[in-house]
Amino acid sequence: MRTYLDCIPCFFRQALDAARMAGAGEETQKKILDELSGLIPRIPLTASPPEIGRDIYGLVRKISGKEDPFEEIKQSSNKLALALYPKLKEKVNNSTDRLLTAIELAIAGNVIDYGVKNALNIEKEIKEIFAEDAQIIKEESRAIFDYEKFKEALKGADEILYLADNAGEVVFDKILIEELVRKRRRQIIYVVKDSPVINDALIEDAIACGIDEYAQIVSSGSDAPGTALRFCSPEFLKLYENSEMIISKGQGNFEALSEENKTIFFLFKVKCPVIGKDIKGNLGDVVLKSNLKKLLRGI
Amino acid sequence: MRTYLDCIPCFFRQALDAARMAGAGEETQKKILDELSGLIPRIPLTASPPEIGRDIYGLVRKISGKEDPFEEIKQSSNKLALALYPKLKEKVNNSTDRLLTAIELAIAGNVIDYGVKNALNIEKEIKEIFAEDAQIIKEESRAIFDYEKFKEALKGADEILYLADNAGEVVFDKILIEELVRKRRRQIIYVVKDSPVINDALIEDAIACGIDEYAQIVSSGSDAPGTALRFCSPEFLKLYENSEMIISKGQGNFEALSEENKTIFFLFKVKCPVIGKDIKGNLGDVVLKSNLKKLLRGI
Repeated sequence: MRTYLDCIPCFFRQALDAARMAGAGEETQKKILDELSGLIPRIPLTASPPEIGRDIYGLVRKISGKEDPFEEIKQSSNKLALALYPKLKEKVNNSTDRLLTAIELAIAGNVIDYGVKNALNIEKEIKEIFAEDAQIIKEESRAIFDYEKFKEALKGADEILYLADNAGEVVFDKILIEELVRKRRRQIIYVVKDSPVINDALIEDAIACGIDEYAQIVSSGSDAPGTALRFCSPEFLKLYENSEMIISKGQGNFEALSEENKTIFFLFKVKCPVIGKDIKGNLGDVVLKSNLKKLLRGI
Repeated sequence: MRTYLDCIPCFFRQALDAARMAGAGEETQKKILDELSGLIPRIPLTASPPEIGRDIYGLVRKISGKEDPFEEIKQSSNKLALALYPKLKEKVNNSTDRLLTAIELAIAGNVIDYGVKNALNIEKEIKEIFAEDAQIIKEESRAIFDYEKFKEALKGADEILYLADNAGEVVFDKILIEELVRKRRRQIIYVVKDSPVINDALIEDAIACGIDEYAQIVSSGSDAPGTALRFCSPEFLKLYENSEMIISKGQGNFEALSEENKTIFFLFKVKCPVIGKDIKGNLGDVVLKSNLKKLLRGI
């Protein structure tokens, strides 16, 4: 997905939020916004938002001097999500369609996103997932839900590249990965960011949440808040090129890869009006979106 | 009120909205945001938001070539509000406290603000004012409501400087002005912006809404979206200095004058989280705020 002009005010908001999270004083916050202003005229709108996001969060790190402003938040998200694990597992065990429930939980876990929300919203949304008798995802909020295509693609997939999004959310991913390998031996490659950006999962988060039990954990080689291929390592790009099926979590990965001609399934919650418009959905919608049409057009 | 760093993302959003309202294509919109980026490092945070707003809307006019992007909207707001006039008047006539009801309506009319809302919101909010049996302003949404102080100040005021905000809203102001002059001969000076900025009322709007029947209409000499004194004309400043009591409508005028040592009553709806924080209120709250404390501190 390209960068829209509506992303520009949001870049400033994100920079300000991250600067504050980094403990920067007002003067340093202003300096960060001033530097970002200098970047704006050089932004090519053909770039995807995570490509720009990489510069923004890089600026915050450089000017604030804080390498990982979201470190504590990531640790507490992991802890919170791990405590939820038995309940999540119970949901799947009690389900008549285990895979569907696991997918729904993996998408629900995508609320743990500090690029767009704060801690209070996240706790509230997680509580809602577990409200008595609550359906995990309401029918009407499924903007796009290519579940049949997903099952079809899964049949032929012995190896899955799973692109992670946020810390904490990793536990919800584990629930889905467990279903992917339950009846069939599959190689799962779980891809995390190379170095800190927002609350995106790093190798240590994947390990803290126990993903290594089921999957090989690899770094994308990039610190963009989304798998922007031009910043990824040659090692990751080789895995990517050879992949049979990709599960891509979160808005950032969708923004980075939505135009790709690959078998990608995007799982995310719509938390940004620009993406909502791009996919013709609404804020709060959940998305399981296949890229297969793009693939066929590409042939 | 000073400019907060949170205003900066909002400046970009406002510039983009105004550029689109001016019919600018995407390339021109981007050019406007690029030019605004150039201004950011030069913004002194001690300036009030309307002082910066003046530059922003000036940029949009200069680059888009459209002198008054909100012209049609202003005309239709005037028309819409004039059609509501008999109903507004009826509310006052049926009230046990005519002045209070007129003040409430004057604040309610402040929803007609295209700096923060779009046409759809505004029509909806106006409909709510006239909902069957609806109280105009709910008790719990009165963040600050210095009605007693207002009545007290009114006792001594033979002349009132009334700082207008938006087109359309002028009709709601007329309702209040009619009460101000109903039992006592008072000179009302109704102050509008000098040239187009957002949908702020100009002389032609004041005349279209019939303010000239009760008040002398004067220009502030400025095109800032709020009465920023350093951009006002010497003629206006003389009126301002000599004024006994000022009624100031809208957020922009509050931002510009909140630190002044004058008998000012600010009437507005909180439509911006930064102002909400500044006055310790919430979005949607209504405010009738006296500056008298500041005045006493100043003595």
